[in-house]
Amino acid sequence: MALIVQKYGGSSVADAEKIKNVARRVISRWEHGDRVVVVVSAMGDTTDDLLKLARQVCDSPSQRELDALVSTGELVSSSLVAMALDGMGHPAVSLSGAQAGIKTDANHSRAKIVDVESSRVTRELEQGKIVIVAGFQGVTSEMDVTTMGRGASDTTLVALAASLRADVCERFTDVEGIYTADPRIVPDARPLKDISYEEMLEVATYGNKVMHPRAIELGAVYNVPILVRSSFVDKPGTLIHGEVTMEVRNKVRSVAHDLDVAKITVVGVPDHPGIAAALFEPLARANVSVDTIVQNASIHNITDLTFTVAKSELEKAMKVAEPIAKSLGASSCIADSKLGKVSIIGTGMQNTPGYAARMFKVLSEQGINIHLISTSEIRITCIIDESRVKDAARALHKAFELDTDK
Amino acid sequence: MALIVQKYGGSSVADAEKIKNVARRVISRWEHGDRVVVVVSAMGDTTDDLLKLARQVCDSPSQRELDALVSTGELVSSSLVAMALDGMGHPAVSLSGAQAGIKTDANHSRAKIVDVESSRVTRELEQGKIVIVAGFQGVTSEMDVTTMGRGASDTTLVALAASLRADVCERFTDVEGIYTADPRIVPDARPLKDISYEEMLEVATYGNKVMHPRAIELGAVYNVPILVRSSFVDKPGTLIHGEVTMEVRNKVRSVAHDLDVAKITVVGVPDHPGIAAALFEPLARANVSVDTIVQNASIHNITDLTFTVAKSELEKAMKVAEPIAKSLGASSCIADSKLGKVSIIGTGMQNTPGYAARMFKVLSEQGINIHLISTSEIRITCIIDESRVKDAARALHKAFELDTDK
Repeated sequence: MALIVQKYGGSSVADAEKIKNVARRVISRWEHGDRVVVVVSAMGDTTDDLLKLARQVCDSPSQRELDALVSTGELVSSSLVAMALDGMGHPAVSLSGAQAGIKTDANHSRAKIVDVESSRVTRELEQGKIVIVAGFQGVTSEMDVTTMGRGASDTTLVALAASLRADVCERFTDVEGIYTADPRIVPDARPLKDISYEEMLEVATYGNKVMHPRAIELGAVYNVPILVRSSFVDKPGTLIHGEVTMEVRNKVRSVAHDLDVAKITVVGVPDHPGIAAALFEPLARANVSVDTIVQNASIHNITDLTFTVAKSELEKAMKVAEPIAKSLGASSCIADSKLGKVSIIGTGMQNTPGYAARMFKVLSEQGINIHLISTSEIRITCIIDESRVKDAARALHKAFELDTDK
Repeated sequence: MALIVQKYGGSSVADAEKIKNVARRVISRWEHGDRVVVVVSAMGDTTDDLLKLARQVCDSPSQRELDALVSTGELVSSSLVAMALDGMGHPAVSLSGAQAGIKTDANHSRAKIVDVESSRVTRELEQGKIVIVAGFQGVTSEMDVTTMGRGASDTTLVALAASLRADVCERFTDVEGIYTADPRIVPDARPLKDISYEEMLEVATYGNKVMHPRAIELGAVYNVPILVRSSFVDKPGTLIHGEVTMEVRNKVRSVAHDLDVAKITVVGVPDHPGIAAALFEPLARANVSVDTIVQNASIHNITDLTFTVAKSELEKAMKVAEPIAKSLGASSCIADSKLGKVSIIGTGMQNTPGYAARMFKVLSEQGINIHLISTSEIRITCIIDESRVKDAARALHKAFELDTDK
């Protein structure tokens, strides 16, 4: 008797009919003799609708109250899934994040799990029940409800699977798994049979939104294999795990892209220790997520600092950066919002030279100008014009032979 | 500095604009120097919408899951009211029933409060915050969310006021207070300045739905005076308390009516000990609320048993009653759904004869036939044809001089 933890996203529970479909899918696992825990997101657009309501009563609601408000979305969907199961004759119980023992810090709207006290879940399983857990939410030591940020139901899934020592951790989604590239823009893209945590982390951070990066990190730390698969078609899916074979390690695994990139360049800053801190500490305090940071080599003690943010954060970032740039003696602060990025990812790049050169050559052959470059051990990212991202992804996918299953 | 506990119903928080109105009203009390705790119901039709959703996924959802589902309605409205206050510059915090320490038994959908552990509320008040509490809900010792039945936000209000030893307990509604009769059918009806707990309990049970009977009982037990007043116009309202003066005690205070009455008569039952139990125990187990019960004097050891239920429960009640009637040897079981009731209520009736006779005379003068009579120490109720209830209420209101303020 295996213990399965599954997660269904908002589109899988968007209405009564879809909720009943999820229930049937859960039952088929349960009738197979397995014990099943199900993590669910809020129904369809519920979270957005609640946020809209919040803005109607207050311009800038407190994060604590926003958490109290939006966390109700998952309470609704989880109790409805439990009712659907009950109605089909299978005893089920819904648990809030608090009841399922998801303990977090008090960082409202982006809380982090500090502990999972899953004894209630275990007790319900032992009583023969299917357990439905509200994703995305937890509770502080003060018993205040927190949420863990968009996509955080994935984190609930992996944390619960780790705490319960589950045999299988399944993430259901509307695509067949993790692809070599986004099939919407690269028609030859193929689903991968498996991918390492490290690679998936880069894929998730640099384009593919299927799994939340924090959930993957958690999977890596607790060595929880995560199967990403379609909730609509019966395909094997992609297994995210730690034991990818040598054979597939020795190559580029995936091309990731992101069209949501804006850039701010602080031009001509007198270079002295502390300028980066002076700029990025206030940005962090203003809750601006800064992505790539590049500082050009200093010439005559004058340097340029460039960083990228999501387009939606550009205005807020400029409001913070401009006065600081001025106070640092910079000559100007320039924003550019029409950018995107393209990345190649693969553990095989780690000890093999030449991948970067090949990538730059492919882009150059396509006449694509590179604005910024950033790399990790297993990833090379180029910031380019938004209008050329699709061409770049297609050319790289072909050049690194991701279209053939070899 | 007084401590005020207020309650606003669903129609007072039905949309963003109304929520802001509630916030302004709360602030005006707060700026007066008082500390304020606010209990809120779910927005407008939220509870009905959630119940509809439940029925779409399951024919007969479990009470535990229904509670988990519908209790989200008050979480939404309470966090929105807190946001609105925050947005107007007044620190506020919303608390779920569990956070506010409303402990109940595990009787889902009709749970009773067993304790109020209000230390969190007190702590937030001491920090200068306005505290918004989700009404209608509590939590079991197992940390499962319960609801306390329709209208139970009133119970939250009075229980919190008692626990916090509040100076004032205000129940806001869409009418000016408690009337001598329903002003929609008796045009001369007037709002009462005050009314005793006992009288109000009869009024609430026998027609007027403004306050939930259990909330009034709780007020009486803990001696919490409750001011019922309009959330739309600035009128003094009606004070429900224990110290009604002799002057007003000595008369009929209110005419109550109810159009939602159905009657079942079990005809010709062989009279022996235990027949009432045989009938009413199964009805209670089927969750049918039986109202008035009358057993006619036994003739030749044959008796008739008559009882009334809400019209919506008639079908269910008949399904339970018919086979039992048969097994008891009754000759038939007859249902009548076109009934209503009219009551006169007043502590003054307690030791004064003649009220019943006057009531029957008034009805007789109107040509109204009485089907059943039931009385308490301070109430006389007649079950009559539904079509004559309004005439009866108007005639009784006039006959007992409730239209004049003397």
